[in-house]
Amino acid sequence: MTTAVPHGGRSAPSRDDRPNIDAASIGTEASSESYRSVRAWTHALCEPLTTEDYVVSSMPDVSPTKWHLAHTSWFFETFVLGPHLVGYEPLDPRYAFLFNSYYVQAGERHCRAQRGLVTRPGVEQIYDYRAWVDEHVLRLIDALDSGALGIVHGASPDEIRALITLGLNHEQQHQELMLTDIKHVLWTNPLRPTYSERPPSHREPEARRAASRWKEVPEGVYRIGFEGTGFSYDNESPAHRVFLEPFALATELVTNAEYLAFMEDGGYARPELWLSSGWDAVRSQGWEAPLYWERDGNDWTNFTLHGTERVNRSEPVSHVSFFEADAYARWAGARLPTEAEWEVTCAAAPLDGAYAESRLFHPHAADPSSASEDPRQCYGDVWQWTGSQYTPYPGYRPAAGAIGEYNGKWMADQWVLRGASVATPRSHARLTYRNFFHSPTRWQFSGIRLARDN
Amino acid sequence: MTTAVPHGGRSAPSRDDRPNIDAASIGTEASSESYRSVRAWTHALCEPLTTEDYVVSSMPDVSPTKWHLAHTSWFFETFVLGPHLVGYEPLDPRYAFLFNSYYVQAGERHCRAQRGLVTRPGVEQIYDYRAWVDEHVLRLIDALDSGALGIVHGASPDEIRALITLGLNHEQQHQELMLTDIKHVLWTNPLRPTYSERPPSHREPEARRAASRWKEVPEGVYRIGFEGTGFSYDNESPAHRVFLEPFALATELVTNAEYLAFMEDGGYARPELWLSSGWDAVRSQGWEAPLYWERDGNDWTNFTLHGTERVNRSEPVSHVSFFEADAYARWAGARLPTEAEWEVTCAAAPLDGAYAESRLFHPHAADPSSASEDPRQCYGDVWQWTGSQYTPYPGYRPAAGAIGEYNGKWMADQWVLRGASVATPRSHARLTYRNFFHSPTRWQFSGIRLARDN
Amino acid sequence: MTTAVPHGGRSAPSRDDRPNIDAASIGTEASSESYRSVRAWTHALCEPLTTEDYVVSSMPDVSPTKWHLAHTSWFFETFVLGPHLVGYEPLDPRYAFLFNSYYVQAGERHCRAQRGLVTRPGVEQIYDYRAWVDEHVLRLIDALDSGALGIVHGASPDEIRALITLGLNHEQQHQELMLTDIKHVLWTNPLRPTYSERPPSHREPEARRAASRWKEVPEGVYRIGFEGTGFSYDNESPAHRVFLEPFALATELVTNAEYLAFMEDGGYARPELWLSSGWDAVRSQGWEAPLYWERDGNDWTNFTLHGTERVNRSEPVSHVSFFEADAYARWAGARLPTEAEWEVTCAAAPLDGAYAESRLFHPHAADPSSASEDPRQCYGDVWQWTGSQYTPYPGYRPAAGAIGEYNGKWMADQWVLRGASVATPRSHARLTYRNFFHSPTRWQFSGIRLARDN
Amino acid sequence: MTTAVPHGGRSAPSRDDRPNIDAASIGTEASSESYRSVRAWTHALCEPLTTEDYVVSSMPDVSPTKWHLAHTSWFFETFVLGPHLVGYEPLDPRYAFLFNSYYVQAGERHCRAQRGLVTRPGVEQIYDYRAWVDEHVLRLIDALDSGALGIVHGASPDEIRALITLGLNHEQQHQELMLTDIKHVLWTNPLRPTYSERPPSHREPEARRAASRWKEVPEGVYRIGFEGTGFSYDNESPAHRVFLEPFALATELVTNAEYLAFMEDGGYARPELWLSSGWDAVRSQGWEAPLYWERDGNDWTNFTLHGTERVNRSEPVSHVSFFEADAYARWAGARLPTEAEWEVTCAAAPLDGAYAESRLFHPHAADPSSASEDPRQCYGDVWQWTGSQYTPYPGYRPAAGAIGEYNGKWMADQWVLRGASVATPRSHARLTYRNFFHSPTRWQFSGIRLARDN
Repeated sequence: MTTAVPHGGRSAPSRDDRPNIDAASIGTEASSESYRSVRAWTHALCEPLTTEDYVVSSMPDVSPTKWHLAHTSWFFETFVLGPHLVGYEPLDPRYAFLFNSYYVQAGERHCRAQRGLVTRPGVEQIYDYRAWVDEHVLRLIDALDSGALGIVHGASPDEIRALITLGLNHEQQHQELMLTDIKHVLWTNPLRPTYSERPPSHREPEARRAASRWKEVPEGVYRIGFEGTGFSYDNESPAHRVFLEPFALATELVTNAEYLAFMEDGGYARPELWLSSGWDAVRSQGWEAPLYWERDGNDWTNFTLHGTERVNRSEPVSHVSFFEADAYARWAGARLPTEAEWEVTCAAAPLDGAYAESRLFHPHAADPSSASEDPRQCYGDVWQWTGSQYTPYPGYRPAAGAIGEYNGKWMADQWVLRGASVATPRSHARLTYRNFFHSPTRWQFSGIRLARDN
Repeated sequence: MTTAVPHGGRSAPSRDDRPNIDAASIGTEASSESYRSVRAWTHALCEPLTTEDYVVSSMPDVSPTKWHLAHTSWFFETFVLGPHLVGYEPLDPRYAFLFNSYYVQAGERHCRAQRGLVTRPGVEQIYDYRAWVDEHVLRLIDALDSGALGIVHGASPDEIRALITLGLNHEQQHQELMLTDIKHVLWTNPLRPTYSERPPSHREPEARRAASRWKEVPEGVYRIGFEGTGFSYDNESPAHRVFLEPFALATELVTNAEYLAFMEDGGYARPELWLSSGWDAVRSQGWEAPLYWERDGNDWTNFTLHGTERVNRSEPVSHVSFFEADAYARWAGARLPTEAEWEVTCAAAPLDGAYAESRLFHPHAADPSSASEDPRQCYGDVWQWTGSQYTPYPGYRPAAGAIGEYNGKWMADQWVLRGASVATPRSHARLTYRNFFHSPTRWQFSGIRLARDN
Repeated sequence: MTTAVPHGGRSAPSRDDRPNIDAASIGTEASSESYRSVRAWTHALCEPLTTEDYVVSSMPDVSPTKWHLAHTSWFFETFVLGPHLVGYEPLDPRYAFLFNSYYVQAGERHCRAQRGLVTRPGVEQIYDYRAWVDEHVLRLIDALDSGALGIVHGASPDEIRALITLGLNHEQQHQELMLTDIKHVLWTNPLRPTYSERPPSHREPEARRAASRWKEVPEGVYRIGFEGTGFSYDNESPAHRVFLEPFALATELVTNAEYLAFMEDGGYARPELWLSSGWDAVRSQGWEAPLYWERDGNDWTNFTLHGTERVNRSEPVSHVSFFEADAYARWAGARLPTEAEWEVTCAAAPLDGAYAESRLFHPHAADPSSASEDPRQCYGDVWQWTGSQYTPYPGYRPAAGAIGEYNGKWMADQWVLRGASVATPRSHARLTYRNFFHSPTRWQFSGIRLARDN
Repeated sequence: MTTAVPHGGRSAPSRDDRPNIDAASIGTEASSESYRSVRAWTHALCEPLTTEDYVVSSMPDVSPTKWHLAHTSWFFETFVLGPHLVGYEPLDPRYAFLFNSYYVQAGERHCRAQRGLVTRPGVEQIYDYRAWVDEHVLRLIDALDSGALGIVHGASPDEIRALITLGLNHEQQHQELMLTDIKHVLWTNPLRPTYSERPPSHREPEARRAASRWKEVPEGVYRIGFEGTGFSYDNESPAHRVFLEPFALATELVTNAEYLAFMEDGGYARPELWLSSGWDAVRSQGWEAPLYWERDGNDWTNFTLHGTERVNRSEPVSHVSFFEADAYARWAGARLPTEAEWEVTCAAAPLDGAYAESRLFHPHAADPSSASEDPRQCYGDVWQWTGSQYTPYPGYRPAAGAIGEYNGKWMADQWVLRGASVATPRSHARLTYRNFFHSPTRWQFSGIRLARDN
């Protein structure tokens, strides 16, 4: 192993070699600084891993860490370097096959089911691949910045910058997946190893959170969707109008204490609380608590990236499926908000929150002393399931070519989640962001915020 | 076999014994006449069947005909007779278990996967069961009609009438399923037997249909959902407002000729036209045409309830999944309408159409001479897939108790279809009706009407 | 339904019309009398069935009764009439496809998984098909008998007689399957209907059977396999020599009382008693008793062709898999006999036994008063699992052509059973008969006779 | 990575540190020298591997290399150290759960399906575990050797020596599996990486092998099974007598050239050549050649541990299933030998052969110039499928306790293979050895030797 591999702690780069990652400053514009920072954060997330940890996939939703490292580089190679850097030669032409995820228009690809069986190229070679791609993207950015465009072709500088920005946002999505995936990998191991130590300052006492209130919103025609400057995905556009009947949104996330009340009231044993397919999932999967919870006598433990802990009752509940969020809401006499309701109500909320850069890696309890009239913890901590299935906005147009496969082709039988989680990079969050997963998905940091008709 | 069993043609009731079914007059109010007519239509649909035909289930979506006959009677027994007719005794208490479909709150039930393996009670006993239920429901209706309420209890007369009406509408849904199910059963047989002869007058010459036009609808706040008198399902309520951006709806259904153009343009071989899960379905199911189409040299045949016929190019395409409807729309440079767009635009369309009572049992070509500025064939012929997933209307409240399972618990990962098909009873159709099926479903008479942004 | 259909009791042939079946006299030589008797017994077995009962297949091993009726006729049509009766025309050429079971060399065939979904041809047409085949086979037999060979071709009279004999033995195998299959079909029905009433004289009191003894056999070279005259399958040949180390065979079958002792000793919960794949079957199938047994408080019931009865402790245990027979033997400190050991030891046993013609349709307890030094109940009652996997005898040659698929191609991963069961026709049993099924098979009347090293 | 890890070549132990492995001298008696040599050969086989290679399982039959390393140590810990070394403490008590394979009586164990998902303990810790076990086993052997038995308990010295010998033979079996498993892992990688370079001297020219002859064996009673001194598995005992009808055994293994003739004659497209379940496997698996063969225009390539090579026609065919061996034999007008026929005929053959220690890692062509009257290549090169299913010898008694699960519980639905392969350690081969696999197994070095009736 060379010293360039940031894993295992044993041979990680020395502190001096490390890029200086200032969490708050990571941006996603197409600049050298953004590029370096985003890519370095990917490496920072790998520091706690052993070589072996990089290799496996513990279930179909989970990709190996080394695949994430390679695929995010493949994205730059395929959509930025290949078409736009004059004379670019791939480090290994076979990687185009090996590290394409699902872009049918970008050529044949390795089957997803076997991602976790590919041992070579190994971790070192993947880092070499990243370095190769970095070197060339930075050369391209320099040319764009300096106006020395002799090595640039195929599109306008602005178009190429837009692709680089897309690549950085793409990498940020995979940063979140790397955390949720490695959490699942470690949990699959019966020894339940730990990703990282919880910083002592993060170990919060349990405290009763202030009761959630209802933020009431009057009926009316509202405008939702992205229309600012800066980056957004195509699925957030176009901005458009919706009519909302009067409703109210909970100011607080549902806590573990509240969810335990649902469980103790027979929540997982009462079919009338569940959608039909949700009840099927409860039975066939044997669900009786959120993912990562395990019975410990009369109590429950929670496997976190810091190891197995006692369930903290004041934290937001996490790792619940849409089915569980929906059943909880029904039990509570409420419902999940639509994505439009969420967006309209949270429009004024600050983008603050416990993001990945906090290195908390676990949702945290809201401050019990600072109750609010407005929704709190909209971002960071947990994604919030909505009652909206993921379909195109009126007037939606996917991007041209393979890039258009990014969002549009998934618009069936998934649900929108809003906000951001404790695994999301801070600069990746925004009001109009539409995350989406299938009904039974539980390995994301996904929680619950209630709504009701007014 | 007694002569009471309307099957096989061999021992069907004589013409004189048959209830006089006037298609146009079948209603679903809780009257003796409606009750008799709806129940008789169920029997009429069985006339072409042999005893053996009643028994089997050819795939998980399909129920045996004799199960449909029994289950629709179970519905009256469970929700009307048991709770509301004083002293009612079931003909066989074990039927409560055997013929419950999915009503968890109505007690334990036989597993769906084995419905097609139950040979006893046989067809005769099922008809006996129907006669038993009929006798008691009619006695109850008489009591309600005459005000001789001594044998009625548990709810108000109006509430009981509402349950009877629900039971009749429920039976009508199963009438449609009986046709689509037996079509699939007969098609599964390699001998491809025929349900009924196509009336010679129905054999239409192919004719170029007038080109479809676009009915333009301006932006605005519209009101949708049921708010009239008469019957509707809970999922059509409450009426509420929606904002629609400007759009246009096609005046005509997509024809087989148009769909063939999509096929000939490589429609089933071009992943970029498909949703990702749709493309998976194409590959794993080997789809290359609508269900029931088979290659015949350079031509295509179409299995219908009248046997195998050559594909008629001027008929509306039918038996396509949501995935195929969506891919076709993308290929055509259009999209599927939302259910609100469909409802707003078709609000003025007459309820006319080729319903089941026409005994056509196959969609028919629109009259080529009578092009229109307004949508045609909104009802009858084929259900029309929308781009709206099936979720509750704002303010939706399911009915209390087991009846509440009717619609609400299915509100996940299905798509709304609007209109009605050639298998739908006429009195079952209405503007606000929300039918719903999963993305890959093809055994219903489901077709395509396009929309576009304006 | 015409009166020709022997089902349901309702419209069965009158007693006078029935062929006079004298159980003891049914032979399988190629004579008109044998042919008529064997075919008539098939019909006799169908008498208790309703039309619906004929249609379904309750699991992959089970074929519908009407398929058995047709397939046994197809066998004569394909291997006897087509090649050897001049000018023979099939009643329906499509039946060649529909009713071929597994004879690859006899052409394409319908997939087994869909046998239970084919409703037409119906029961009446199948009986018509049988009548058609009967008429022609009898015409051929007459020609062979009378030496009027003008309508016979393709092979010698003796060869054709051999094929007819094979067809009759083939039909007898299906007679046994018809009983075991319909038993499974009726049991799958939660109403647990009855095939036939148990004759009162057959309801035996429980009585302690005499203890089983060990019949000792000295080491030596023995000759096994068929070498007489009369019919045998190719897999029983050639006769050959085997060396047997000294051993002993139990004189009695294992009873339900003995098997209950195994169960009460934790037999189904102790992995050390089971083969590894047997233990997997126990766990994955949830076995805790023989097939058809159900707990009834502290007792067990047994579903029989006469309905659900209390387990009779003195009867031979039946419907156990090889895995269960093997585990029981290990628990009992014994083992299963090899097929050579069985054949050598039972060589002198009379062919008496409770065969299908007894209409017992359930194994019976041995007479407790007549203990014996020699094996009893070798035939009738239950097939006896051996510890020999089904492989060819040294020098084995399968018959030429498609007929050669009859036995040879199944010689992998199955176990030989010896004897005969209560569902076997009497004239079908013989010393050298090799029946064979897979390790987990339980729907046959299969039981246990122990052996040990001496 | 410490330098103690023999992988990747990059940080492998220096030549001087390596145990001096003299292939020919590795024995399996319970001596320090044997123990050190066997364990060192395990490490030698890992030298070409990267850390990532150790982790994955490419199909259910395949275990990760690091699991093999750990499990073979667990075997010594569980059956030797725990019960017999006074005061032994396991390095990590959780390994007892993690590295038990299938010994039900040795306690709960990790599920096999997840073996390839466990990333920690990592490769280094596994080597530490091996060192810990080595230290203690060697201490125990020293005590046994020196008669200083104060730290030994629970059994007699001879019994403990027998367990150590069993552990070494067990490790040798896993050495063979390590090679066959890593071959499959590397082949699963679309980049098809190489395990090791083929030594240039090993690259053999193609040469027509001398035609195979038939070694004739007269009928008679023969004695087979193990009865010498030294180690054998329980399944080779007791020695016993069998009667063999006259037969002949081929002197040569079937070559790739001969197998290609079968393929070119439509071998994979002619159902009449196959057992029924074999034909199912051909169709469902899409077999058209041995495992690891791929079409290359009109030619075939063969993936070996040295990478992808052109098929060498003079080499013995390898990586065929029982089904393919059986079909080939039928096509060739012959059959597979029974295991008794193989043992009787090869009894005089020398134990010479191309074993694992040759580092050939691929079967080699027989010398064309030295034809023989006696069977050649009985050992080394390829295991030879027999036509005998794997059942107990008469009088078989498994060892007591969990060790008894080693062989006995697998005696169902598998076939015996005889000889040894190019992946077998030399000292592991013997005349009476009974290897066994399921009918469709292809990832072992398994080939064909024909027999015939005489």
